[in-house]
Amino acid sequence: MLSAKYVGNQTVEVSSYTPSKPGPEQVQIRVAYVGLCGTDLHIIHGAMDKRIQMPLSFGHEMSGTIESVGTEVTAWKPGDLVTVMPLDWDGTCPACTAGHQHICQNLNFVGIDSPGALQTLWNVDQSWLIGLPATISLLHAALVEPVAVAVHDVERAQVSAGEKILVVGGGPIGLLIGIVARTKGAEVVITELDSNRRQLIASLGFTVLNPVETDLIAYINQWTNKKGADSVFEVSGSATAVFAAIELVKVRGKLVIVAIHPQPREMNLQRVFWRELSIIGVRVYEKKDFEAAIQLVDDGIIPTDQIISKVLPLSQTSEAIKILEKGLAMKILIDVQNAGVIS
Amino acid sequence: MLSAKYVGNQTVEVSSYTPSKPGPEQVQIRVAYVGLCGTDLHIIHGAMDKRIQMPLSFGHEMSGTIESVGTEVTAWKPGDLVTVMPLDWDGTCPACTAGHQHICQNLNFVGIDSPGALQTLWNVDQSWLIGLPATISLLHAALVEPVAVAVHDVERAQVSAGEKILVVGGGPIGLLIGIVARTKGAEVVITELDSNRRQLIASLGFTVLNPVETDLIAYINQWTNKKGADSVFEVSGSATAVFAAIELVKVRGKLVIVAIHPQPREMNLQRVFWRELSIIGVRVYEKKDFEAAIQLVDDGIIPTDQIISKVLPLSQTSEAIKILEKGLAMKILIDVQNAGVIS
Repeated sequence: MLSAKYVGNQTVEVSSYTPSKPGPEQVQIRVAYVGLCGTDLHIIHGAMDKRIQMPLSFGHEMSGTIESVGTEVTAWKPGDLVTVMPLDWDGTCPACTAGHQHICQNLNFVGIDSPGALQTLWNVDQSWLIGLPATISLLHAALVEPVAVAVHDVERAQVSAGEKILVVGGGPIGLLIGIVARTKGAEVVITELDSNRRQLIASLGFTVLNPVETDLIAYINQWTNKKGADSVFEVSGSATAVFAAIELVKVRGKLVIVAIHPQPREMNLQRVFWRELSIIGVRVYEKKDFEAAIQLVDDGIIPTDQIISKVLPLSQTSEAIKILEKGLAMKILIDVQNAGVIS
Repeated sequence: MLSAKYVGNQTVEVSSYTPSKPGPEQVQIRVAYVGLCGTDLHIIHGAMDKRIQMPLSFGHEMSGTIESVGTEVTAWKPGDLVTVMPLDWDGTCPACTAGHQHICQNLNFVGIDSPGALQTLWNVDQSWLIGLPATISLLHAALVEPVAVAVHDVERAQVSAGEKILVVGGGPIGLLIGIVARTKGAEVVITELDSNRRQLIASLGFTVLNPVETDLIAYINQWTNKKGADSVFEVSGSATAVFAAIELVKVRGKLVIVAIHPQPREMNLQRVFWRELSIIGVRVYEKKDFEAAIQLVDDGIIPTDQIISKVLPLSQTSEAIKILEKGLAMKILIDVQNAGVIS
């Protein structure tokens, strides 16, 4: 059995391990595919060294098949197709008791705060499992987690038919937000710096703009007849972009903060006041978002084959990270059962 | 007839003028009292010189009695007690057609963008009038406009019974927000730098804190049992305060931007993301807020006599401004029909 671990010093090692048996309330999953995301890059760049315990099996976007179940598990059986909603809340904090378990004040985010999916056989609490339909491809199902992020974000912004939506940043999450917003009947424009990504986004039928070559205020004014965008999703993480985004929102419109901004950002609060804007924070997803995401993937509404740029064997996790760092891919999946050649 | 005008160079002049007759759709008001507010200070400090036309009769918090009506006016008659909702919208911009006339994209704010109430006889469009009940004191009715601001802000934050509300900045608007939030059944804590204001606020039954002497995070954690405030109203305009305020809001709670922040402010968007906060801009009021404010004043729920620090004659408008600049008052009214001694 193999696992990929972040061992510190910007290094990922793939090595063999002996899996333990699942605990009484756990199941053991034979992991099929794991998607890599920006948070994984943050981990590997050392930005979360204070938060995590090294060595860490990371990975929290996944699909798999149940291999075995703990002695107390009755709802699941070997062979079931599953994904994991990687949120482990305490159930007792003020956020949990108010019904917002997904942003528990003491959340264990699986794959960051506890071991993740980049391992051949992975033991997880049965409470984290979400069943997958038999019709779904496990390859595609590895996208359920980021799709759930997009579903959550679009729901929080209450995007509705006929709205004009701007997505700032066309990486996987930005693109998925665009796709989900489009399923609500919204018109979507996406901005993205990278020309390869712009090409992919355009091929999926979106208007996509290069923000450094476009006067966005003029564009939005023309597009919306001087009204402004109904909602702007800030998915770039850029200080400049988030400052500029406020100018693009209509009266009583929404600026949705999707990206992580580790540094304080300058904001034009006078504009927030002037137009009675709302700035809305969004984080992860609720179970209903995960279930909606499974449906969207299973129904073929998510263009999974176009979004998945590459599938690499577990042994090449480091190479996959390098490709992502260079911005050369939309989404890379790791084929966990394919050991490949251990370098 | 006398009017007080901002004539530029941080100067207010009181001089005589000959009033014109009201136009066909106008009424002429014999102005009783005018409240001075922070926006008036901004005008006199020159901060709005680019926006306004000098000389400007300012003043937009007022009460009065109709003196005469234009030829086309049928709904109003001399002797009617009135106040003015000083918002003149175009009715055609995207904000107006979406039902948000109060923040019309081409709003004429009466008393800033067009002449205000600091004049013996004031001609206004009949559409700006709001009738006052016969039972109300005209002195107290001059507070209706700032009370309407507070009503609007509390409505936008959907404050409800049992909530724990922090108001940062205990000037007139902050205090009124506290009072209105308390009518909703909320528990309210107010922070205020000035000791005289703190004393007044405490005398009205509020817990009031000196923010420089209080560890607000510790205070809020203890008060809310680590949950955070349901809503925080930022009424101070201070960069430090608005940055700190974000830390005090509960998961899915609201930071309401009431104060004007002319400069961009640093914001911790990671906290907005982490706790799924909403930052909400609020500006002026809708007609329903004005009507609710009249009710609150008329019912004696607003402690008008405590809030009105001083009433000065029109001739002493400059002196009133100086008292406000020194932070020596909560609210000063100008008695417009009392000419006093013209200096």
